[in-house]
This record gives sequence, C-alpha cells and structure tokens, in this order.
Amino acid sequence: MASTLVKSAPAGGTHETDVIIIGAGPVGLFAVFELGLLGIKAHLIDILDKPGGQCAELYPEKPILDIPAIKSITGQQLTEQLLDQISPFDPQFHLNEMAVSLEKLDDGKWRIETDMNTAITAPVICVAAGGGSFQPKKPPIPGVEEFEGKSVFYAVRQREIFRGKTIVIAGGGDSALDWTNNLARIAKKVTLIHRRPDFRASPDSVEKMHALTAEGKVDFHVAQITGLTGANGQIGAVKTTSADHADREIACDMMLAFFGLTMKLGPIGEFGLDLTENRIAVDTEKFESSVPSIFCIGDMAHYSGKLKLILSGFHEAALMAHGAFHYIFPEQKLKFQHTTSSRSLQARISGD
Amino acid sequence: MASTLVKSAPAGGTHETDVIIIGAGPVGLFAVFELGLLGIKAHLIDILDKPGGQCAELYPEKPILDIPAIKSITGQQLTEQLLDQISPFDPQFHLNEMAVSLEKLDDGKWRIETDMNTAITAPVICVAAGGGSFQPKKPPIPGVEEFEGKSVFYAVRQREIFRGKTIVIAGGGDSALDWTNNLARIAKKVTLIHRRPDFRASPDSVEKMHALTAEGKVDFHVAQITGLTGANGQIGAVKTTSADHADREIACDMMLAFFGLTMKLGPIGEFGLDLTENRIAVDTEKFESSVPSIFCIGDMAHYSGKLKLILSGFHEAALMAHGAFHYIFPEQKLKFQHTTSSRSLQARISGD
Repeated sequence: MASTLVKSAPAGGTHETDVIIIGAGPVGLFAVFELGLLGIKAHLIDILDKPGGQCAELYPEKPILDIPAIKSITGQQLTEQLLDQISPFDPQFHLNEMAVSLEKLDDGKWRIETDMNTAITAPVICVAAGGGSFQPKKPPIPGVEEFEGKSVFYAVRQREIFRGKTIVIAGGGDSALDWTNNLARIAKKVTLIHRRPDFRASPDSVEKMHALTAEGKVDFHVAQITGLTGANGQIGAVKTTSADHADREIACDMMLAFFGLTMKLGPIGEFGLDLTENRIAVDTEKFESSVPSIFCIGDMAHYSGKLKLILSGFHEAALMAHGAFHYIFPEQKLKFQHTTSSRSLQARISGD
Repeated sequence: MASTLVKSAPAGGTHETDVIIIGAGPVGLFAVFELGLLGIKAHLIDILDKPGGQCAELYPEKPILDIPAIKSITGQQLTEQLLDQISPFDPQFHLNEMAVSLEKLDDGKWRIETDMNTAITAPVICVAAGGGSFQPKKPPIPGVEEFEGKSVFYAVRQREIFRGKTIVIAGGGDSALDWTNNLARIAKKVTLIHRRPDFRASPDSVEKMHALTAEGKVDFHVAQITGLTGANGQIGAVKTTSADHADREIACDMMLAFFGLTMKLGPIGEFGLDLTENRIAVDTEKFESSVPSIFCIGDMAHYSGKLKLILSGFHEAALMAHGAFHYIFPEQKLKFQHTTSSRSLQARISGD
C-alpha cells in the first residue's frame, strides 16, 4: 500500500492540463518542479499505487549514493523529498492507472486515456516511464487466463469489489500480506496461500496476519497452487498441494495472486514514437521525441551518451521544461532565470 | 578567508594525476565524485582561496532552490555537502592559483602551469571554470599599473611577504577587513582606507578592526585614494583626500586594494579551444571540446539547449567522466553500474 501518501484523483474523470507526465518516478516528479518554475501545470499517471517508481517499488530501503550533494539517501527518502519540493506546484496524480491510448485532437492537443477510463487532454506529453510499466507477473497456474480480470486479479484496482466475498490471496511478499490484512476487514473470508511458512514482507504485516489468523478472520496455508476450478470466468476453488502431499480444494469467489512485478514497455510502444531497443529516441536540446510536443526523459530516453542515472533524468527534465514552454505559451518569450536571484521564481516556489 | 577549510597543496611543486579540473566550484567538485566512481583521480585548480566558486564567493548565504530533492540550500552548504561527498576520493586542491599555460607533452599528456609555478601533468583536462576566473577589479588610481605585482597587490598570495612591512589596505568589504585584522599580527603597521565609515563586511570583522584601532595596531581613515608616490615599482605613499578636503600622504611599503572581483575568461581563452561568446563548444555525448581529451562542463560549456544551471553541470560531469575513462584506461571496457547495486562502486565511495 502507499507508504508515501499523495492524493490520487478518482479514476474515470476527464481533465485538462498543460503537460501529462507518464510515470511518477523521481524523474517525473522533478519534471513537475522544472515545469512549475516556468508556470506550467502537470498531471502524472502511474500504474503503481504510489509515487516514486522503481525507487519506491524496487529499492525503497537501499541507499542511493550518487545524487549530487546528498551523500546517501534511500529511494523512499528521495521520493519524499521530491514530493516535498514539488508540493507548491500542486501536481495532480492518477495512480493505479496505466496510460493505454494516445490520440491527437483537432485543436492540436493530445488526449490520453487510461485503463481506468480517465481521460486527460494537454498540449504536451512527457514520457518519464523509466524501464516501462510495472506489470504483475502471472502465476504459473494452468488455465488461469480464463479467469483473469473476471475473478482472478493481480492487483487491487477497486477495493469495493472484494466486499463480502470469499477470497484466496496467493503470495508471500508485502502486497500479499498487506492486502490479506486489509481485505480481511471487508471480505467474508480471506485465505492466504504461500509455498513457505516465512515471508519477504515487513515483520509488522506478518505479525498482524498471524493475529487475524488467531481471531479466525484469516486462514493461512503453506501450500503450492496446482490449479483452479470454475467456469465462464468465475472461479470456484483453488486446488493446492502441500509438503506432505495433502491435496485440497479451497472454495472461493475471487483470487488475488501477488507473484511480483515485471517491467514492460507497455502501450507506450504503440504511440507511434521512434524506438531504439524499446527506448524513445530524443534530441539532446529539449529531449523531444520524433513526434513534436511529445518529450521523453529518464531511463526510457535514448540519445548518444545516455546514462541511466537519476541525475540524467533530472537534467533532462530541466531542458524538457524549456522546450515544452513554447507549446504551452507560444506567444511568450522565455527568459532564463536563477532561483537565487529571481523574485518571480521564488514566489512560484513559495506558492505565492 | 576560507570559511570552508580544505587542504591546499603548497604552491610551486610538480604533480601527476589522471584529470586536472580547472575550477573548484560545485560542478568541478562533483566531477571529482563521478571520476572517482570510475577509479579516476583528480587535482583541482582554483583562483579563489576556497572551493565553491560562485556559490561560495557570490552567494554563500543565498538559498538555492532548484537542486533536485533539496528544497533549499545555501551556496555554502552546497559546497560543504559536495566536499563531504567527494572526500573518499581524496581530491588534491591547488587554491589561490590560476592555470596560465597549457602544453601538450611528447607522451600525449597535458601539462598545466599556474601563476604560482605549480606544474601538473595528466592525460585529461576538464574545464569547469563557470563564468571564468574571478579577478580583482583594479582601483581607479592614476599610475597604479607601475606598482602592480611589485608593491601593490589585489590579493594575498603569500602572506609572509607582508611581515614587518608598513601596509595600506584599501576597501570596505570582507577581504579588506579580514586582511586588515590578519596582517595586523605580522605587519609593522596597517592603515585601512575606506571612502565611507560603514562597511559591507561581517559585523564581527568590523568590530575586531575597531578594537585593533583602539589598541593602536591599525589606523583607519575615511578617505578617497587619489594617487600614489614612489618609483621603480616601489610605492612610497598613498595620497588621499577626505570629505573635509584634507589631503594627506600616508607612507607605506606596500598597498593591498580590495575593490571587488570581476569574472574574466582569463588564460583559458588562449588554450586553443573553439569558443562561442567566451564559452567552450562541446558535444553533448561526453562534453568534450574541439581538442580531444579536453572536456568542458558547467556554465562555461556551450551546446544547443544549454542552461546555466548547477544541475546541468552535475549531469555533464557524469557524462564527461565516462568520456575521460577511455583516455585514462584505454585498454579497459567501461561497464555501466548503479551505486544502489554495485559492490565495487560502494567500496570506492566508502573508501575501502
């Protein structure tokens, strides 16, 4: 669950802004700052349920040692400090959503739709999608495809659909434990299945799960899932086998499987941009792609000399913002200013 | 005087290293880090008596608001945090020195000499000289040229030459006050001349000067300098006029005039590099100049899209380091690594 809390807009609405940033990792977040300095508003879309991207998802606790003037910082701290730095610019987050389609409108603006039916229009797109979108790994269960998106899920997009249901949760990481504890409050019954008795999850969550088990609100089984029963997309039971070869069938209405995440380029690959090895080719002046007014910064950008450093994405964000400015304020001249001396920049940062 | 203390090598020696960095501002300092990660050693030359460049000299107390993940930091703090971050790489500083000549040796290495007769050889030069070298503004005194560098100075390069002398110090800023207080300890007599009774200097220094005046160790005159007497480069007296039109001659052996600093490109302009409006043209892949193995990063670098941000220089330093690597280790392949996961980078940073 989101350990860095930001307000995410409700899914499904329609929005207008200046720049749509795809990806709320550190580079997408800092882009909000560089755009904000120039008076440009932004919305961010991210498939994760929290900002921070790989930093927050893959190494929240690992020290990053090469951010300038910061001797050591964890991914989580970096995310929090960036959120703090950009807060004066009031970025709008669309978390737990994936940008799935891109369309050019008659007035020259772009319209992006997400898999949660949110629509956002803006004159400029900035792709800051890192290694791609994090997508759940499929569990190796024969026949699982038949139930996917109907009664078997790999992420909780809408918690309410689990209310009153009998649920099997599979996995041994933080997501499996957190959702076991969370959904136990609204489900009829939650059964957690993991192939080992120990977990790769925070001790607090494990302890809480065991407490719920003691209260009879959660069942925990050490077992391997071997198959599913059911028909027409509706799961009926999960078949398991355990170390002592005891086979069981655990009846359920829904299954949530958390087998980790993998990174895929995803729908961005279909946006019509020049790609080199799944990365978007950009110039080094504004980090603009082959399609005017679509920019790409961070790990997904490709140019000669490119290093996949967070620092690189930060710098690319600054130059991108100057490039984006001319699409958003075509009549205005952009005067380069420093935050140390410009009162107008200082006023923007202080939120005046 | 140096508020950020680092050990500066004694002037006049000969040294060998991997990269000579001209300029110890924030970008030159961070270059030490990026080079160090790749196992590359560096020496830094700076005309100022302390690291930090413009940050430390022009706005040590002013908040900088656009360093990523740092909401607000003064130039002085930024300098200190960078010094802390690069300390594992043991950079060698040559402060209070100006690089005045560049020569290509028969073995392909570069040899730089400073105005203090320090000679350094290295296969790679990295110019990180910001807006240029800070050089003292000349006082508007008729005929002062005749005495410059002989008995009239605009900076203290060797404190010992002032021992036992009768000195006039002109100016009203920190340098004038600090050196008045400092040299009063070793001079025969120090007279401070400023055109107004109030100073643009730290109240502590002003107070100390007044205390020394009360003790009879310093004379302070509110007056304007109108001319000098002397012959063959040896000053004899400073002629002044004051608000009540009283003209005086103050006998002295030496004069120090602190009338502020101005930035000039300086001798780098004669190094044979392609210049565009006093900036060095570089590529955007490695930030290498028109002369192979001479790189330029930070405000002095010129390329399409360039923004004069500290952040830009930080990123340029990273790509420069990767470009420099091939000159220093021509036989080795450079493998890109992250500090979060590479044990060899972590060992370098921890100084193991």
